[in-house]
Amino acid sequence: MIRLHDYPPSGNCYKVRLLLAQLGIPYERVEWDTRAGETHTPEFLRINPAGKVPVLETEGGELLAESNAILSYLAEGTSLLPEGRFERAQVLRWMSFEGSIHQPSLAVARFLVKFVEMTDEYRAMLRQKQKEGYVALELMEGHLEGKDFFVGDCYSIADIALYAYTHVAHEGGFDLRPFPAIRGWLERLSAQPKYVPMAEG
Amino acid sequence: MIRLHDYPPSGNCYKVRLLLAQLGIPYERVEWDTRAGETHTPEFLRINPAGKVPVLETEGGELLAESNAILSYLAEGTSLLPEGRFERAQVLRWMSFEGSIHQPSLAVARFLVKFVEMTDEYRAMLRQKQKEGYVALELMEGHLEGKDFFVGDCYSIADIALYAYTHVAHEGGFDLRPFPAIRGWLERLSAQPKYVPMAEG
Repeated sequence: MIRLHDYPPSGNCYKVRLLLAQLGIPYERVEWDTRAGETHTPEFLRINPAGKVPVLETEGGELLAESNAILSYLAEGTSLLPEGRFERAQVLRWMSFEGSIHQPSLAVARFLVKFVEMTDEYRAMLRQKQKEGYVALELMEGHLEGKDFFVGDCYSIADIALYAYTHVAHEGGFDLRPFPAIRGWLERLSAQPKYVPMAEG
Repeated sequence: MIRLHDYPPSGNCYKVRLLLAQLGIPYERVEWDTRAGETHTPEFLRINPAGKVPVLETEGGELLAESNAILSYLAEGTSLLPEGRFERAQVLRWMSFEGSIHQPSLAVARFLVKFVEMTDEYRAMLRQKQKEGYVALELMEGHLEGKDFFVGDCYSIADIALYAYTHVAHEGGFDLRPFPAIRGWLERLSAQPKYVPMAEG
């Protein structure tokens, strides 16, 4: 059975759990408390030298890090990763956007609000992350206008990747009221078959 | 003919030019001076609302943003993107690492040193980016020990993605002397058939 090295409050781990549930793939979970430093122990660093969850472990014991790479690996051959060459590339494009623009602002803002004791320095960082996060949200809103999903009007792993930290954006202090296209898309996502919510933490 | 929306000093654009050269794909270039603000004009924002180069424009006029997505699109069906499902995922894993850990530190440090008039605030940011960049370099060094390339011991777009900002790391103040595996890998990369250097800017 495949194994997921996991931490429930992490949006990156949630992406993988949501996809595994929707694909009906059984798996076992190994939990590492990142906030307690468990992902920086020698034991975990053998699993991922970058000290990050999620990591997927195949039945053969092969290890795969980086949530969006795990999504691609699991979705290969299913409707959640389109066959067409250009559409596949667009899925990667939105996952790149998620990893390099969206997540560094929305996920970091959420982390600061939820888990960090505020200082002036952190408050300034939070303001900057919120500013960058609204830019990411505006790009998403503009793209989603008149569309049901991010790529080719089909539900794909690009949607799952972007859903993880968008649906908890309010936890980072973001107000989604000015983003009707995003709100409609969030509702469509949570209405997909075999949807599972994010664990609380 | 396909068209590349390009800015020569950008490592992200260089990734695409290097791959196009190595695959022998003819293309035309449209240059946008990001530092002069040309990627934030209404004309460019129609090409990419995120205001970033590179953007690939297909013969049919379809637009694809995000350098690593462009690499995947162009390399599909060639030896530079492995066929095997797990190896493909590892290529994505290293491109995700590049986009979310490597580039935000190494590329930003280079930008600060090369293009920004220093203030105390920028100096503090540069120190932080260099610290994070050395963490990324250590991860690369550890992975490359005993290996010729990042994935499956074959030259792939994961190597091209990571080469772009690593081979100019010194421009961001990084010293690669303590990283013999990276230095050997950089030499192997620049010795690949049809290699082209990065434009100066």
